[in-house]
Amino acid sequence: MMSANEEHTMKHHKRPFATYAPRTFLWDVSADGKVATITLNRPERKNPLTFDSYAELRDLFRGLVYATDIKVIVVTGSGGNFCSGGDVHEIIGPLTRMTMPELLDFTRMTGDLVKAMRACPQPIIAAVDGVCAGAGAMVALASDLRVGTPAARTAFLFTRVGLAGADMGACTLLPRMIGQGRASELLYTGRAMRADEGLAWGFFNSLHEPEALAGAAAELAAQLAAGPTFAHGVTKKLLHQEWNMGVDEAIEAEAEAQAICMQTRDFRRAYDAFVAKQKPVFEGD
Amino acid sequence: MMSANEEHTMKHHKRPFATYAPRTFLWDVSADGKVATITLNRPERKNPLTFDSYAELRDLFRGLVYATDIKVIVVTGSGGNFCSGGDVHEIIGPLTRMTMPELLDFTRMTGDLVKAMRACPQPIIAAVDGVCAGAGAMVALASDLRVGTPAARTAFLFTRVGLAGADMGACTLLPRMIGQGRASELLYTGRAMRADEGLAWGFFNSLHEPEALAGAAAELAAQLAAGPTFAHGVTKKLLHQEWNMGVDEAIEAEAEAQAICMQTRDFRRAYDAFVAKQKPVFEGD
Amino acid sequence: MMSANEEHTMKHHKRPFATYAPRTFLWDVSADGKVATITLNRPERKNPLTFDSYAELRDLFRGLVYATDIKVIVVTGSGGNFCSGGDVHEIIGPLTRMTMPELLDFTRMTGDLVKAMRACPQPIIAAVDGVCAGAGAMVALASDLRVGTPAARTAFLFTRVGLAGADMGACTLLPRMIGQGRASELLYTGRAMRADEGLAWGFFNSLHEPEALAGAAAELAAQLAAGPTFAHGVTKKLLHQEWNMGVDEAIEAEAEAQAICMQTRDFRRAYDAFVAKQKPVFEGD
Repeated sequence: MMSANEEHTMKHHKRPFATYAPRTFLWDVSADGKVATITLNRPERKNPLTFDSYAELRDLFRGLVYATDIKVIVVTGSGGNFCSGGDVHEIIGPLTRMTMPELLDFTRMTGDLVKAMRACPQPIIAAVDGVCAGAGAMVALASDLRVGTPAARTAFLFTRVGLAGADMGACTLLPRMIGQGRASELLYTGRAMRADEGLAWGFFNSLHEPEALAGAAAELAAQLAAGPTFAHGVTKKLLHQEWNMGVDEAIEAEAEAQAICMQTRDFRRAYDAFVAKQKPVFEGD
Repeated sequence: MMSANEEHTMKHHKRPFATYAPRTFLWDVSADGKVATITLNRPERKNPLTFDSYAELRDLFRGLVYATDIKVIVVTGSGGNFCSGGDVHEIIGPLTRMTMPELLDFTRMTGDLVKAMRACPQPIIAAVDGVCAGAGAMVALASDLRVGTPAARTAFLFTRVGLAGADMGACTLLPRMIGQGRASELLYTGRAMRADEGLAWGFFNSLHEPEALAGAAAELAAQLAAGPTFAHGVTKKLLHQEWNMGVDEAIEAEAEAQAICMQTRDFRRAYDAFVAKQKPVFEGD
Repeated sequence: MMSANEEHTMKHHKRPFATYAPRTFLWDVSADGKVATITLNRPERKNPLTFDSYAELRDLFRGLVYATDIKVIVVTGSGGNFCSGGDVHEIIGPLTRMTMPELLDFTRMTGDLVKAMRACPQPIIAAVDGVCAGAGAMVALASDLRVGTPAARTAFLFTRVGLAGADMGACTLLPRMIGQGRASELLYTGRAMRADEGLAWGFFNSLHEPEALAGAAAELAAQLAAGPTFAHGVTKKLLHQEWNMGVDEAIEAEAEAQAICMQTRDFRRAYDAFVAKQKPVFEGD
């Protein structure tokens, strides 16, 4: 565990994350050092989240704002499932005995995970097979892109445990992804969205056979990592900030953001490559 | 008609609605008392709305905020059609002779119906066959879920009577349901959306043969009524309130809302049932 | 080029646009004088935009607010392509050498084109064949309706030149059109959206064979021009203004807007025609 000093350092100074040592999941970095894969890894329980893994994921995504190396994140699960959500025994049981301030500490922690996923500059790709439920479905939804398998079953099943569909931002994120009517059905009923529905409705960007899923995610991640990664971070920031802007205000925000990107070296690299009839090599600055 | 005292009572005190006596439509309550069905019932005119029925529907949905019994609403029409919208002779004719304040009284009354439908805690299911036009299409759109038949024809046809597509919230509700481009087409042209388009575009949650429509709506309503209905009301409230929130603000709103739901008995019932390997029986408190 | 006096006149007084004399594109007006078609016309370069054509398009759409004659706009390209976006040599090269204030002048000019397209009362129909890329894709996206061909390839390819997907409002307009997940993929990767994807996702309203494209656009334009064009302008204004309103505020905005439309002559014309069992003839006032 980090000391207060180390945590201060992490929060305010850039540093590499390739050597990050996780406590509650797996962390693998690609050969070129640009793509990190988070694997939820308790396959015998379908990779549930716990108080500890929520907190570690939140802190990791917060830290990634300052990463000097990692440009794209892949999130996946082991053993043919993505994530079964909050564990019934380790999370739901304790929640039934908590005071209101303790409950709010928990719901804000889970929400902070989504906030951190939306606030880091790295595009996040969720690679989803099998069970993708509850908070697990929210982790997939909070990602930038989603690849799945025909067996992926995504259930925002909060209503099945007596709760509201309003969890971790579901009521704002899901309608913008698949439409207000479909989102309402999934959130009120808690039923699983089949993979083919997820593809037709725009939840999944593509489907792949289970044995090809990791490769498809890695290929997409490598493509993004080879792009102008500073500009990708701007795209992500603007997709987030424009969520409730008017069109005119969004256009002004993009005018400023794109002018910033036009002073990056990557923009010049692209132009120089075009003039030289070559493929640009972006470096993210 | 209610006296001022009775109206005061309705607005500030909880009361049952099973015995509600409608003036301008049919009102049926399921055997368990939890699902109420509103049937627009002037089949010879395809169930148009009138000044009276607009006002009664508005007042009913406002009252349902205080219902002690009804947990889910179904809205449908009789005789193979849903609703033909504002009646040409009973509504459009008089409108052509009104002053501006009178016109605003009318457009605000129709808008207040949509506001009331979005503000009551009960999920609303529209069961749509045949003609679904004008204000009728808006009633379907303002519902939480929509089931239809292959013969359902949904037309936001305001433009056909010389008006704007901007009516009762259409310009904000329809784009979020089916996408900005498709909504623009329907609102500018007034053309009918076919049922298969409505399903593919996310307007309808499912399609059923006409003879199976009422049963499908009843089954879905019973499923929702058997769920955690207090939490459903929270889902509905948050879907409404987050319409123009930023992602981060929505997440905080959901953290607070879900913490409230975690102190309901239904949440404990779900946990206890899970531990006992039983199906939870929710009671809505 | 207009004198300062003429420009003042254009901005503050109504005037006809049928005789508009373009400098950087073609301008054709239908026989009835109500539909104007803008054709980007440098087919040998796939109709790129230049500093001059951006500015002229911006000024033209700003002026159309005051048009007395033109009711619908069609935007298209010549030679089997829509628009290849900002020209690499004429735009990207100079941009790599600009100061920050100059860059902002440029990004605001391109954004102002989109703002002007959304602010004019005429519905805009983009007729898209072949290449539709970069700023060209944004012109199509900023239109109200889009008809295409099976060969239309729409690429928000800013990322390919080292820039952010956040350009001219893409991060707010595209997610509302095709969903947040699909928009994210197109904006991060810059890949071309195929025409069949564009139709399935709600970007295109319809697809047509290349030889039928102009006719389909003209037919749709004529249909809108024969409608209540004042009311169409209200629809367009409300679709724009409600972008980040809450549902209740949007409903009030529509109550006011529709009450205004109910005092137009077109509304009475529709009623009178209905009573006389005739087809209404709208005149746009």
